[in-house]
Amino acid sequence: MLKSYGYAAYNALTPLRAYQFKRRSPGPRDVLIEILFCGVCHSDIHQARNEWNGTNYPLVPGHEIVGRAIQVGKEVNGFKAGDLVGVGCMVDACGVCPECRDGLEQYCDATVFTYNSPDKHTGKMTYGGYSNQIVVDERFVLRVSDKLELAAVAPLLCAGITTYSPLRHWRVGKGQKVGVVGLGGLGHMAVKFAHAFGAHVVLFTTSPHKADDAKRLGANEVVISTQPERMQQHLQSFDFILDTVAAAHDLDQYLTLLKRDGTLCMVGMPDHTHPAPSAGNLIFRRRQLAGSLIGGIRETQEMLDFCAAHNIVCDIELIPMPAINQAYERMLKGDVKYRFVIDMATLQG
Amino acid sequence: MLKSYGYAAYNALTPLRAYQFKRRSPGPRDVLIEILFCGVCHSDIHQARNEWNGTNYPLVPGHEIVGRAIQVGKEVNGFKAGDLVGVGCMVDACGVCPECRDGLEQYCDATVFTYNSPDKHTGKMTYGGYSNQIVVDERFVLRVSDKLELAAVAPLLCAGITTYSPLRHWRVGKGQKVGVVGLGGLGHMAVKFAHAFGAHVVLFTTSPHKADDAKRLGANEVVISTQPERMQQHLQSFDFILDTVAAAHDLDQYLTLLKRDGTLCMVGMPDHTHPAPSAGNLIFRRRQLAGSLIGGIRETQEMLDFCAAHNIVCDIELIPMPAINQAYERMLKGDVKYRFVIDMATLQG
Repeated sequence: MLKSYGYAAYNALTPLRAYQFKRRSPGPRDVLIEILFCGVCHSDIHQARNEWNGTNYPLVPGHEIVGRAIQVGKEVNGFKAGDLVGVGCMVDACGVCPECRDGLEQYCDATVFTYNSPDKHTGKMTYGGYSNQIVVDERFVLRVSDKLELAAVAPLLCAGITTYSPLRHWRVGKGQKVGVVGLGGLGHMAVKFAHAFGAHVVLFTTSPHKADDAKRLGANEVVISTQPERMQQHLQSFDFILDTVAAAHDLDQYLTLLKRDGTLCMVGMPDHTHPAPSAGNLIFRRRQLAGSLIGGIRETQEMLDFCAAHNIVCDIELIPMPAINQAYERMLKGDVKYRFVIDMATLQG
Repeated sequence: MLKSYGYAAYNALTPLRAYQFKRRSPGPRDVLIEILFCGVCHSDIHQARNEWNGTNYPLVPGHEIVGRAIQVGKEVNGFKAGDLVGVGCMVDACGVCPECRDGLEQYCDATVFTYNSPDKHTGKMTYGGYSNQIVVDERFVLRVSDKLELAAVAPLLCAGITTYSPLRHWRVGKGQKVGVVGLGGLGHMAVKFAHAFGAHVVLFTTSPHKADDAKRLGANEVVISTQPERMQQHLQSFDFILDTVAAAHDLDQYLTLLKRDGTLCMVGMPDHTHPAPSAGNLIFRRRQLAGSLIGGIRETQEMLDFCAAHNIVCDIELIPMPAINQAYERMLKGDVKYRFVIDMATLQG
């Protein structure tokens, strides 16, 4: 076993603090990774505070991991010591079900998530990226380009793939009008990707002060969603809308903006169910309400390669590890552009 | 103008009774049709009783029309006097919008429905098929085979196409497991079509006594949806589920039965919104909740031709015109297998 250290939530109420723990010794197919940066996802807060229930303490959050391979098992083919690598939301899956065979491990019934998930190797819970190192089966390790700012790559592993995957699945591209609801960690990446794919991008936000930033990120238009007359101007005009807002909200106001055969896809997991959408808004234009969860490993690598080729990273604010609790409070106020990333060099062993 | 007669609702509360009215004289592109049979759709009741609001009285319902062309305008190319023809839910549309150009006139913003819809020719409301004759632009007239029982063809014009269209759009076929929710006018046609397309068909019903009939109609399995243990056996196993039930009901119990990327499609328009489905049930398997409205004219003809080739008609109970009010009461109790059809020979002028 490898002595490791990081930051953990010890219960739902008190701040995260230092934690010493053990990781499994690397097996023949494992990569031992020195963690350089870890993004801070809103689901880290949900789980640290047990807002989705089922949190096991101590909890080491973090699933937007970038680091360097420092040791590889003898059966590892894709990586060698010194490689820059990434780890996202998953560290294992069954490998044989239809979902795994299709490269969509996130929909496998046996997915092992990067933290707070039963670890087949140890029988304990997995520990995430708010830590100095991690041991991951090479099938769940991603290659990271050295051309991009490493810290800003980290959130691609969750915020990036969670928006990239549905935009690709629903074939967003040139000639299409695409909406993005919400300009947070996910939303700002959705704007960047939809723009990069050639779509006409409209950002919906309740915050007028975000308009300039949205345009800088690639939005062609910004619509303040609390202004009904502005919303009306876009009725039945969208091919696809990606809804990144997790707080319960009115879906009908977006469904009605879709063309016939358009899709509204949710990627934010609400604590409380959204109000019921009108069946008529689906029936009368053959529209679809869908959801999408992160993305598979193959597609995550494709996304990272796309980002390297198109010079796309997240907009981040780098923080030292001890600032994590303050960062959580700022995130809850929406006070971050657009993702906190922890500099693991600041973690004391 | 042509003197015509039929049955009308004069208000939301009193029974339908005889009504004399005028139809437009046939223009150069019109077909004058002697109505032989007209199916009775649940939406006839909704509109007769103003349950969707917006009903104009007197209202002549009926949009499942089969008859004989008795006169055609000089610019009519597709029909001649003596032809067997059908008319469904629509009698006109703009003809130039993307929906019309794609043969999906039901999604046009200017669709003229067969009854209770502003008629461009007369400036009044359209009158439906509970009547002796109708005048329709040939673009909205369907060819009907003489190989099938004519009365049983009538409901294909709404119940048939409303289920055929989504089953085709979502490419239901061999190797797929397909669910049909509800065994009424729409549901019994959905079972027939899904079976004819080669799918493994599971019928969901709350009525155990419908099981034998469902199997006769083509269902491979019948599941009583009020038995949770039976529902559990089908978790994550369906490619597609067509939900024909209009009454507000739990959608999650069907969403959870879908495989990853599966679609639950609603074709019944509820008076009250269905309870809100769980976003997680969409997100965690990339499922879709969709709706579909009848079908376009081109596809309706394709459906009628498919039925002629495969000897498919509706299961009907033929009634005389004066029995319409009693039929409505029986429909509200679910007491019909599976569609009432009015024999227009019983209509007194």
